Amino acid sequence: MNNWFSESTLNDTVRSSFKYKALIHESQSDFQRIRIYDTYSLGRLLVLDDSAMISDKDEFIYHEVITHIPILVQEQTKNVLIIGGGDGGAIRELVKYKSIKSIELVEIDSAVVDISREFFPHVASGLNDQRVKIHYTDGVEFINNCEKKYDLIIVDSTDPIGPAVGLYEKKFYEVCREHLNENGIFMAQTETPLFDEYSISSIYDKLNETFPIVETICAPMLIYPGVYWTFSFCSLTEGITSFKENKLCEYGEFSSKLKWHNLDWHKSCFKLSNLFSASIDYKSSL
Amino acid sequence: MNNWFSESTLNDTVRSSFKYKALIHESQSDFQRIRIYDTYSLGRLLVLDDSAMISDKDEFIYHEVITHIPILVQEQTKNVLIIGGGDGGAIRELVKYKSIKSIELVEIDSAVVDISREFFPHVASGLNDQRVKIHYTDGVEFINNCEKKYDLIIVDSTDPIGPAVGLYEKKFYEVCREHLNENGIFMAQTETPLFDEYSISSIYDKLNETFPIVETICAPMLIYPGVYWTFSFCSLTEGITSFKENKLCEYGEFSSKLKWHNLDWHKSCFKLSNLFSASIDYKSSL
Repeated sequence: MNNWFSESTLNDTVRSSFKYKALIHESQSDFQRIRIYDTYSLGRLLVLDDSAMISDKDEFIYHEVITHIPILVQEQTKNVLIIGGGDGGAIRELVKYKSIKSIELVEIDSAVVDISREFFPHVASGLNDQRVKIHYTDGVEFINNCEKKYDLIIVDSTDPIGPAVGLYEKKFYEVCREHLNENGIFMAQTETPLFDEYSISSIYDKLNETFPIVETICAPMLIYPGVYWTFSFCSLTEGITSFKENKLCEYGEFSSKLKWHNLDWHKSCFKLSNLFSASIDYKSSL
Repeated sequence: MNNWFSESTLNDTVRSSFKYKALIHESQSDFQRIRIYDTYSLGRLLVLDDSAMISDKDEFIYHEVITHIPILVQEQTKNVLIIGGGDGGAIRELVKYKSIKSIELVEIDSAVVDISREFFPHVASGLNDQRVKIHYTDGVEFINNCEKKYDLIIVDSTDPIGPAVGLYEKKFYEVCREHLNENGIFMAQTETPLFDEYSISSIYDKLNETFPIVETICAPMLIYPGVYWTFSFCSLTEGITSFKENKLCEYGEFSSKLKWHNLDWHKSCFKLSNLFSASIDYKSSL
């Protein structure tokens, strides 16, 4: 198919394809091939190697889910660590909270950050905030050598193949837990159970063995094969709906401009259908 | 692409493709071309003209949503009318309730019923129930000439193009409302707002002008382009979560075997994200 970008499931039996007007950027970084397409239905689409990463059409779903859900239920979110997420989308949401004092981003590939600033300025807009510090290094290596603790750790990573495999291992989850403050929260994207090529139940088993509270959130990611995506909320103490007044106050200042997240949706997004709870073998104690 | 079935959005800029092992049936009825593929990821896939209708992998999502939601909140569901749905999937769910006395199915194409009985016996399994009567005729014509009233009317139709256009018109919704009993409920599949080619907001405007209570339910349909699908619950009196004890009692006898629907999911499935509520211009009075 000419002028179509296609991504398939790992076993190549299901494909999602998006027609594009033009390939507007192509380069090879030290780590991956980077392409940006100007598509008809998604706006700009960022592709790393052969995987769609973000599009104008749906990036806000991912970024609003992975940030506002943990922040709203945490009394104090002073410092945040993001592993991956070089596009800056999660940071754009985080900097809306004035009470956050420090945001560290660990991105292995500086080219992703540069490309996002140039081609997705509305996604990268928070990267220049003075509270943000970027470490260009491997996420697993960073956390293993880190001496600080964080209130919130967000894993905004690619699929559990290739360089990101280490971000789905139990050892990594345990090290992250050790680097959380007393009321810490760990958030991660955790694939789809609909075409379960990455054994999502084993990911959730590891999370449940590591964190006392684990909730699965479902939201659609149009550009990922399977679309119906999961995110995991893992907490040492807080439930997923224990909204904190001070945070609701900050949230109220910008919430009318959010494109996906609202409090009603937040309160319901972790109520799973039988299909999801069976796939995930859901054991949360909440 | 050899051995791939592809369906695209109306403007052909987004495609979903499924690889198949074999085309196991192909025929031309009086109304449409009928094909069945044996796919790698979805099991059997029924295609009418060029549109995917049902697959083994996800048919239960659609059929459980469109039936259990209205039935559980209605004190008495004695007689049900289904327009479309010749595969029998909605009926399979309805016959689980012994309190339902009569189910009429209006399907324009008898070939769809025959094909479903042969190739999707687990979907068609309820069609032989003695409470079921099938009318092989046009849905709009049937309701316009019908003298009965129903407790529940379900529209299990194709997209609002071609023969199904009439099932999305305000006049049709009004006639359906006139054919509902006092506490009647109208359920329909109502497309996706993600690739909004059918002006979903105009569909919801018409529903809101016709029914006092309108709720939008979101659930994924893997085989439809866009995946994140909506269903509408339109009621004359009942709220979407006003569960009735007698119905919960019946439901309890089989609910552990359902693959999608559960009461927690039911209570949350109509809590829309900002994206959906903005697209749908949601005006429900509930």
